[in-house]
Amino acid sequence: MSLAVGVIGTGVMGAEHARLLRCAISGAHLAAVCDADESRATAAAQGAAVFTDAHALIASDKVQAVVIASPDATHADYALSCLAAGKPVLCEKPIAATAAEGLAIVQAEVALGRQLVTVGFMRRFDPAYNDMRRARIAGSIGDAVLLHNVHRNVSAPDWFTGAMAVTNSLVHEIDISRWLLDAEMITAQVISAPGGDPMLVTMQTETGAIVSTEVYMNAAYGYHVHAQLVGRKGTVEMAAPTRMLTNLAAAQSFTFPANWVPRFTEAYCLQMQAWVDASKIGTTTGASAWDGFVTTSIAEQIVQGMASANPIPLSFPQRPALYA
Amino acid sequence: MSLAVGVIGTGVMGAEHARLLRCAISGAHLAAVCDADESRATAAAQGAAVFTDAHALIASDKVQAVVIASPDATHADYALSCLAAGKPVLCEKPIAATAAEGLAIVQAEVALGRQLVTVGFMRRFDPAYNDMRRARIAGSIGDAVLLHNVHRNVSAPDWFTGAMAVTNSLVHEIDISRWLLDAEMITAQVISAPGGDPMLVTMQTETGAIVSTEVYMNAAYGYHVHAQLVGRKGTVEMAAPTRMLTNLAAAQSFTFPANWVPRFTEAYCLQMQAWVDASKIGTTTGASAWDGFVTTSIAEQIVQGMASANPIPLSFPQRPALYA
Amino acid sequence: MSLAVGVIGTGVMGAEHARLLRCAISGAHLAAVCDADESRATAAAQGAAVFTDAHALIASDKVQAVVIASPDATHADYALSCLAAGKPVLCEKPIAATAAEGLAIVQAEVALGRQLVTVGFMRRFDPAYNDMRRARIAGSIGDAVLLHNVHRNVSAPDWFTGAMAVTNSLVHEIDISRWLLDAEMITAQVISAPGGDPMLVTMQTETGAIVSTEVYMNAAYGYHVHAQLVGRKGTVEMAAPTRMLTNLAAAQSFTFPANWVPRFTEAYCLQMQAWVDASKIGTTTGASAWDGFVTTSIAEQIVQGMASANPIPLSFPQRPALYA
Amino acid sequence: MSLAVGVIGTGVMGAEHARLLRCAISGAHLAAVCDADESRATAAAQGAAVFTDAHALIASDKVQAVVIASPDATHADYALSCLAAGKPVLCEKPIAATAAEGLAIVQAEVALGRQLVTVGFMRRFDPAYNDMRRARIAGSIGDAVLLHNVHRNVSAPDWFTGAMAVTNSLVHEIDISRWLLDAEMITAQVISAPGGDPMLVTMQTETGAIVSTEVYMNAAYGYHVHAQLVGRKGTVEMAAPTRMLTNLAAAQSFTFPANWVPRFTEAYCLQMQAWVDASKIGTTTGASAWDGFVTTSIAEQIVQGMASANPIPLSFPQRPALYA
Repeated sequence: MSLAVGVIGTGVMGAEHARLLRCAISGAHLAAVCDADESRATAAAQGAAVFTDAHALIASDKVQAVVIASPDATHADYALSCLAAGKPVLCEKPIAATAAEGLAIVQAEVALGRQLVTVGFMRRFDPAYNDMRRARIAGSIGDAVLLHNVHRNVSAPDWFTGAMAVTNSLVHEIDISRWLLDAEMITAQVISAPGGDPMLVTMQTETGAIVSTEVYMNAAYGYHVHAQLVGRKGTVEMAAPTRMLTNLAAAQSFTFPANWVPRFTEAYCLQMQAWVDASKIGTTTGASAWDGFVTTSIAEQIVQGMASANPIPLSFPQRPALYA
Repeated sequence: MSLAVGVIGTGVMGAEHARLLRCAISGAHLAAVCDADESRATAAAQGAAVFTDAHALIASDKVQAVVIASPDATHADYALSCLAAGKPVLCEKPIAATAAEGLAIVQAEVALGRQLVTVGFMRRFDPAYNDMRRARIAGSIGDAVLLHNVHRNVSAPDWFTGAMAVTNSLVHEIDISRWLLDAEMITAQVISAPGGDPMLVTMQTETGAIVSTEVYMNAAYGYHVHAQLVGRKGTVEMAAPTRMLTNLAAAQSFTFPANWVPRFTEAYCLQMQAWVDASKIGTTTGASAWDGFVTTSIAEQIVQGMASANPIPLSFPQRPALYA
Repeated sequence: MSLAVGVIGTGVMGAEHARLLRCAISGAHLAAVCDADESRATAAAQGAAVFTDAHALIASDKVQAVVIASPDATHADYALSCLAAGKPVLCEKPIAATAAEGLAIVQAEVALGRQLVTVGFMRRFDPAYNDMRRARIAGSIGDAVLLHNVHRNVSAPDWFTGAMAVTNSLVHEIDISRWLLDAEMITAQVISAPGGDPMLVTMQTETGAIVSTEVYMNAAYGYHVHAQLVGRKGTVEMAAPTRMLTNLAAAQSFTFPANWVPRFTEAYCLQMQAWVDASKIGTTTGASAWDGFVTTSIAEQIVQGMASANPIPLSFPQRPALYA
Repeated sequence: MSLAVGVIGTGVMGAEHARLLRCAISGAHLAAVCDADESRATAAAQGAAVFTDAHALIASDKVQAVVIASPDATHADYALSCLAAGKPVLCEKPIAATAAEGLAIVQAEVALGRQLVTVGFMRRFDPAYNDMRRARIAGSIGDAVLLHNVHRNVSAPDWFTGAMAVTNSLVHEIDISRWLLDAEMITAQVISAPGGDPMLVTMQTETGAIVSTEVYMNAAYGYHVHAQLVGRKGTVEMAAPTRMLTNLAAAQSFTFPANWVPRFTEAYCLQMQAWVDASKIGTTTGASAWDGFVTTSIAEQIVQGMASANPIPLSFPQRPALYA
């Protein structure tokens, strides 16, 4: 009755997923945890079974469904293992370290004949993004023609490169823009400020809609994600990300979250609940393996072409019927 | 391991509590439902046990904890029954139809020597109110000296009287103001617009803080709850209750919720989770029976004195040590 | 063609009025300035004639219209002198130090058979208040039933008493509320926080509308004036008093003005232009001598009755036909 | 003492300039008006002298300074005529119909050895833009690296082409971005939605700052101008363009202005006052002839290159020392 979930990886995101399964999700429980660092795994397990070998966790009878939150390079291997075991899997983004690996997962699902993979693009469960998408579909703002995204982080490590701003941060906007617009990207172009940060990435969809994204890794003042969707009749956008206003010391203010965890707390929780609910009835939710592959592929093509400011044409294989 | 909860009453609020227990709460499940209308109970039960006698549900071995969401006049009887059975109870506000009945519940808990009752003043779990209270306790705005509350409903039935605006609506501000300020009210005065609606109720606490509350039963434009807490150094207040802004038809706008259910969805869910978590470890959370009694008593004293615009002195019995 | 204006008093407000007349007003010029402190007068005159005797300025052929910005205690004497000279006068609030003196000015105008006095309640020219009043008159929010005013200053001198909060600050809300609602006040009641600040003053109009005003002399965080007008169908209120938002140091913020001069810059300028335009065609604008008297009288009655928290009944002489 | 101003052209903008000079400007008056349509000129003159020949107005002894608000194609001819007459001129944007004509005006000023031309880019006098520029110069947000502009009109006539979106609308952002950033543009690229509207124009300055501008001629919902300036430490942006919020019919809202006249009323008035004040002491203010030429030149280069989505390199002649 209660879904037994195993979590692979107990870093920041894995520990948070484990916490959700223990404390905040209906109809599921944390059955097992895996980490090469056994003491960290034990701490996160809070009494659940502990593994140090991910494949053993995946194979275990105690585990009906799997969350992958281990390093990016391991995602494809573990996801394929889940497919082989026929178990539903919620894989943290990206689906894989390379587009080629992502495509292999797509092909494995196609061979299997059914979807088992959900990629953890949690923004698809954020209430604000959902309000915006519903408004677009309802037609009140007319056909969508432009989407302005802003994605600002407080700071990035020194070793963070421009390519990582694309593969690590921009991927969220690639996914959410495809989802908000229900359309595929066909070109992208990149312009950067001195030092490579911030960058402004302009994409265009097959329907001609323009997607503009500021990616700013060292915005200094706070973690700030904003989106405005512009249609032929009107626009919808996120409201200020706060519940409280303070008047103090000559100013009215509200505080930004420090990073994505507090900003998307509700989205992570809703994603997990939706994934549990779907897994129990044999379906999937959120971003599919195909979505995960396409997003990784677009990021790869942008990184390859971003040395030039000219538009980069984007291309993909045919979408399999499984994802229609 | 999973707490078996029985829900008494399957009207709007009871059905919502049952839904939360089925779909959104960790560590608990809907074990039983009771309603005099058996078909309505069966619909809400979704497979859980169905009762038509509340005392039978309370007594049942299948039920470890009880949610009371039946008509106000029944609250005291069922709450006392839960106390007699030694089962934790989440009772929708008000705790009882009269202060005398509320006091009887307090006395029963005192006789029992431990608290089992939580009164469903869900605003105590609303994130915005919590942010405001935390800010006051942290001291950033200095000592709190004034609280402005606004409580607007779209419309009230024709038979709704001024007294009901106090006993049905204002009670929320009585409770949340006591909680926000951690102080007891000692006077109240009421002034009303023509027809008795809106009314402005001004209370003062033992510490001299002023609590001003607009209660407007027929505000027409939407359900709107707002609070601003004013201190010696600054203020905190709720931000606009929305996640999305729309630009359309010559205006920027956002939509108000239709009533308290969508406005306080998150609060209801957090309240239920906190109550389940507390019940499992033998404690309570939220508003106590004493809080429920005091709020009902203040409302009663206001109703008795509101024909005059002069200040109404408020008095209560001594608070039992159990609620220290 | 250009109206020759003399300004009496060159303190903060007088110097500002002189500056407006020199630099920002069409169809008028600063013709003369008067101050007991001749060097201060000369500095403000910037080449205009300098007087040290206010009556001499009023009588001078060089002066067609007079602005009174000298200490409150002198207002009545100078205003009566202007009436005797038949010259239009813009008198800083209050019209006089006492209601009796204010009534004498009203009676002098009545004897003269025409209005020459405008009282400088500049908020009547503030665009936000005007938008709100227009909305009420247009009927979109339905009949007005409640007005929430907030009037916060950064700090008051030590010698500032509760009575001065009424006569110096609350007078602005008395005037603007009468103007916003087009109705007269019939009762008032006062409740104060410890130390007498802030206070909450609740008035009611002859039509039953409730006017709630927080007067906070030591609000610490900034100068902040807010008003929300509540009708039977909806509400109108001032937007945040800023043109710019800043994201910095973990917060989004805007800055409050330090006091009323920057907050009401535009109102002071519009008031002066309207007064000049009206004076040139022999009419008046803004608050009349009657308005000035009534506001001073209400303040006086509140001060006399505020030791009690009970409602204070307000009464006035009959309004002369001149002010119909 | 009062500057005698002649206004050429009495269409929407010319009539507004004439009104400002008659009713709202200190130290100047409307001395003459010119329009080929004599009856329209007479209506706008309100008693001032009426001309039907612009050169006659410019030459008239009655006129000390000139406002040009006639059709774009006439700007250069009249501006050169003002230079020949040695009279200060406020020329509505654009300075000329072509960059070549604009350069001729620059060269005429250089030959004259002093500036007499102000181009009416009124946004430079808008309080919100000024707050933003001051914040940048004060250094609080760090070095500016990105500027997001949004420029939306309700609708454009059918015959409005993509090129006109650049030469008529985008020119405002070209000018204000140069002024906000104190830097010159070196590249531009254009991407358009289906039908050519909206378009997104991305420019980059010599210092590497990115300027992104949405130009939307048929945004339908209202006239909406927004700008956010992003620095290394923080950002500044315009607040919501309103003074009043309305709660009505299930929503909170404010109304957008219908077009640029109500949005920039204050800017137009401040620009005229600053130009009058500057003209009286022999200086200029606002956008210079050089600014006017550069903006027109950038617009021309963008129109020539916008068929491609690749970056368009921008070039200009050397800036004369007169404009250092």
